[in-house]
Amino acid sequence: MRKPIVTLTTDFGLHDPYVGIMKGVILTFCPEAQIVDISHEVQPFEPGQGSFLLSQSWRYFPTGTVHVAVVDPGVGSARRPILVEAAGHTFIGPDNGVLAMVYAGVPHKVRVITAERYFLKPVSQTFHGRDIFAPVAACIAGGVRPSSVGKEIDDYLKADWHEPRRISKRAWGGLVLHTDRFGNMVTNFHVEQFQEIQLRPFDLLVGTRHLDRLAHSYSEMTPGEPFLIVGSSGYVEVAANQGSAAQLLGCGTGSPCELHLF
Amino acid sequence: MRKPIVTLTTDFGLHDPYVGIMKGVILTFCPEAQIVDISHEVQPFEPGQGSFLLSQSWRYFPTGTVHVAVVDPGVGSARRPILVEAAGHTFIGPDNGVLAMVYAGVPHKVRVITAERYFLKPVSQTFHGRDIFAPVAACIAGGVRPSSVGKEIDDYLKADWHEPRRISKRAWGGLVLHTDRFGNMVTNFHVEQFQEIQLRPFDLLVGTRHLDRLAHSYSEMTPGEPFLIVGSSGYVEVAANQGSAAQLLGCGTGSPCELHLF
Amino acid sequence: MRKPIVTLTTDFGLHDPYVGIMKGVILTFCPEAQIVDISHEVQPFEPGQGSFLLSQSWRYFPTGTVHVAVVDPGVGSARRPILVEAAGHTFIGPDNGVLAMVYAGVPHKVRVITAERYFLKPVSQTFHGRDIFAPVAACIAGGVRPSSVGKEIDDYLKADWHEPRRISKRAWGGLVLHTDRFGNMVTNFHVEQFQEIQLRPFDLLVGTRHLDRLAHSYSEMTPGEPFLIVGSSGYVEVAANQGSAAQLLGCGTGSPCELHLF
Repeated sequence: MRKPIVTLTTDFGLHDPYVGIMKGVILTFCPEAQIVDISHEVQPFEPGQGSFLLSQSWRYFPTGTVHVAVVDPGVGSARRPILVEAAGHTFIGPDNGVLAMVYAGVPHKVRVITAERYFLKPVSQTFHGRDIFAPVAACIAGGVRPSSVGKEIDDYLKADWHEPRRISKRAWGGLVLHTDRFGNMVTNFHVEQFQEIQLRPFDLLVGTRHLDRLAHSYSEMTPGEPFLIVGSSGYVEVAANQGSAAQLLGCGTGSPCELHLF
Repeated sequence: MRKPIVTLTTDFGLHDPYVGIMKGVILTFCPEAQIVDISHEVQPFEPGQGSFLLSQSWRYFPTGTVHVAVVDPGVGSARRPILVEAAGHTFIGPDNGVLAMVYAGVPHKVRVITAERYFLKPVSQTFHGRDIFAPVAACIAGGVRPSSVGKEIDDYLKADWHEPRRISKRAWGGLVLHTDRFGNMVTNFHVEQFQEIQLRPFDLLVGTRHLDRLAHSYSEMTPGEPFLIVGSSGYVEVAANQGSAAQLLGCGTGSPCELHLF
Repeated sequence: MRKPIVTLTTDFGLHDPYVGIMKGVILTFCPEAQIVDISHEVQPFEPGQGSFLLSQSWRYFPTGTVHVAVVDPGVGSARRPILVEAAGHTFIGPDNGVLAMVYAGVPHKVRVITAERYFLKPVSQTFHGRDIFAPVAACIAGGVRPSSVGKEIDDYLKADWHEPRRISKRAWGGLVLHTDRFGNMVTNFHVEQFQEIQLRPFDLLVGTRHLDRLAHSYSEMTPGEPFLIVGSSGYVEVAANQGSAAQLLGCGTGSPCELHLF
C-alpha cells in the first residue's frame, strides 16, 4: 500500500529548527508518513508567495497527498486554521490566503479546524505549525476523515490578486508572481487564458522594456536578450538564455506588467 | 513496526555533498532508517549553537530516535566521540559541547565511542561525520545496543554557558542563545525558571533598550515596537510584530541581556 | 527488501518548487522510493561542479541506487538525455558533462534515453528534470531495466578538464575543483596519483602563495596559516584551521594551481 505523503511549504527557512520540529511531530502522529519539502524559503510574512509555490507543485503528487502551508504572520490572532479538500488532495494552513491560489482553480470544500483533540497541547501562541497544522496533517495522512476536524465554511478568504485585470479591449494589467533562482520572472498570464500570444503579435511591457518575442526554448535565443517563454507551469515567463531576466530588466516579484494583443 | 528515525544537526550547509554522503552511509548501514534534518546551517565551528538547536527539537520526536550532531572544529584531534542516552533517545556527536544543552536538563548516561568495528574504514582525519558518527548512528538505529559501542564515562564536557548568572538579589545576567529567521532573539531565560515575569513588573535590558512588556501573541502588538514573548520553546524571546527585533535593537546571537524583577 | 534510493543533484536551489515537484513525480511513479538530496546549490549552468559533487558522493550509497543530476543550461536543445550504468549504480542526466567525473574513473555503459513511454507528457521545453529525468529515474528505481530506456552509445561527452596537466618533468598544472562552506579548496590532485607529496618535499603554488606543509589533521596547525591536507575524498585540499583558506588566499573554485615535486 502506498505510504501517505505530507508536503511542507513554509517561510521558516532552514537555519532554525522549526521545520525539523514539525517533521518530528508528523512522524510521531503518523510514523509511516513520507514527508517532502516544497519550499521553506517563502518570503517571511508573504502568504501569497507560499500560495504560488504550492499551486505550482501539488498536482505532481499522487492523490491522497496532504499539503501543509504555514506562512502565518497572524499566528495567535483570530485568523482560523482551515482544511481544504480539492481534486483528491488535502490542504492545511491558516485562512490568510496561503491556500488561495490552490483552490482558485478547482472545485473544493473548506472546513474550519476546531477539533482540539488532534492538537499538540498546550497550544502555543506562536507556533501553530507545530501545535495544530503538523498534528492535524499527520492525523489526516493516517486516515482520520476531514469531516472530523471541523465544519464546512463558506466565508474563508478568497483572493484574486493573482488574476490579470482587463484595462482595455485588448490589454491586460498583470504582475510578476515569482522570480526564480535563474532570474526567470513568472507572470500571471497563463497560456490557457492567453493562447493568442502563441498565434499573433503582442507586446509585453515589463519595467521599461517592450518584449514581443515568444521562444520555444531558452537555447534558441541569444544570451543577454530577454524574451517570453511559456514556462513549465503554463504561465508566461520573462526569461533570458543563461542569464537573469530579472537582473537585465531591474524587475522582480510583484513588478507590474502590461500585455497588449494586436 | 515503527521505522527508526535518525536526525541530523550539522554545520555542513547544503551546498557541499557532506550531508548527502552521511545519508548514504546511514542508509547503507540501516536501510529502513527515516532521516530527518534539524539544521545544517549551524554557524561553522559553534558547537554551542548546534546544541541549542538540537535541545529545542529532540523532544518532538518519538522515543527511540537517534540524534546525530556534528559541529566538530576539533575533528582529528584528541576530542572523543560520545553517545548519550537520555529520556529514551540516543545522541551521538563529538565531546565538545554540541550535546551539552541536551543532557543538561535530563538524567542521562554518556559513553565514549570506541568500537571501531562499527566505523567506516579507513577513518579519515577530517570527516568523522561520515566515518564514525553516521555509521554508529545507523547501527544504533538498526538495533545495536548502546552498551556495545563503548564504556560509560563521567568526564565528558559539561557546560553551563547557557545558564543565566545571578548578579544581585533580583537581577540576572543572560544572553541571546539564538536569533531566528524572523529576527526573534531567544534569550536563556526560561519561563519555568522565571515564572515571575508573567506575574509582576520586570525590566529586560538588551542592547540600549529597556523592555517591560510581555505579549501573549505577536499580533496584539504594534509593528515596530519590540516586546517580550514566551516563545514556543519556553524561553523568553525578544520579538517584534512583523519585523526583526534583532535589527531594531542591533543585537543578535551572543548579545548579553540583563533581567530585573521588581 | 531494501527500498530503492534515488539521489538528486541539481542547480535548482531550495527557494523554488522545482525540487519538490521532481520528488512528487518520483513518488508518483515509484511510491517506495527513498529520495536523498546531494545538493541543489550547484552554481547555475555549471555542469562540471555538479559532476564533482556527485562524484564525491555516489560511492557512499548502496549499489542499486539511482542518481539523478540536473544541471542543464541546454534544456530544450539537441543535447541528449543519457543513462549511465557503472559499478552497480545508475546515473541519469543530460549529456553535457554533468556525469563526466562519475564515469571517468570506472568501467561504464552509456545509453541515450529515447523511450518516451516513461516520460511525463506533454514534455515541456524548459523542465526536463520533471518531465524526463525524474520519471525515468523512478521507473529504473521501480525495476525497469536500463536496456529498455534506449540504445547504448559511444559518442557521449567525455571531459578531462578535471585532470591535472603535466607542465614539466616534475610539475603539474591543476585547479581548484570546489570550495566548501568552510573555505577548504579541493584541488584536482588526488593522493592516489600523487602519493609522493606524502613522502618528499613539494611546493604548491595557489594564488601568490607557496605551500609546502602537508598536515594530518586541521587541529595540529596554527589558525590563520594555510596548509595542505588530504581531504576526505582523497583529493589534496588547501585548508586552514578554523578559518577559510579561500579567503586567506583570495582564491576559489576554478583558480589555477601548480604542483612541483622535488
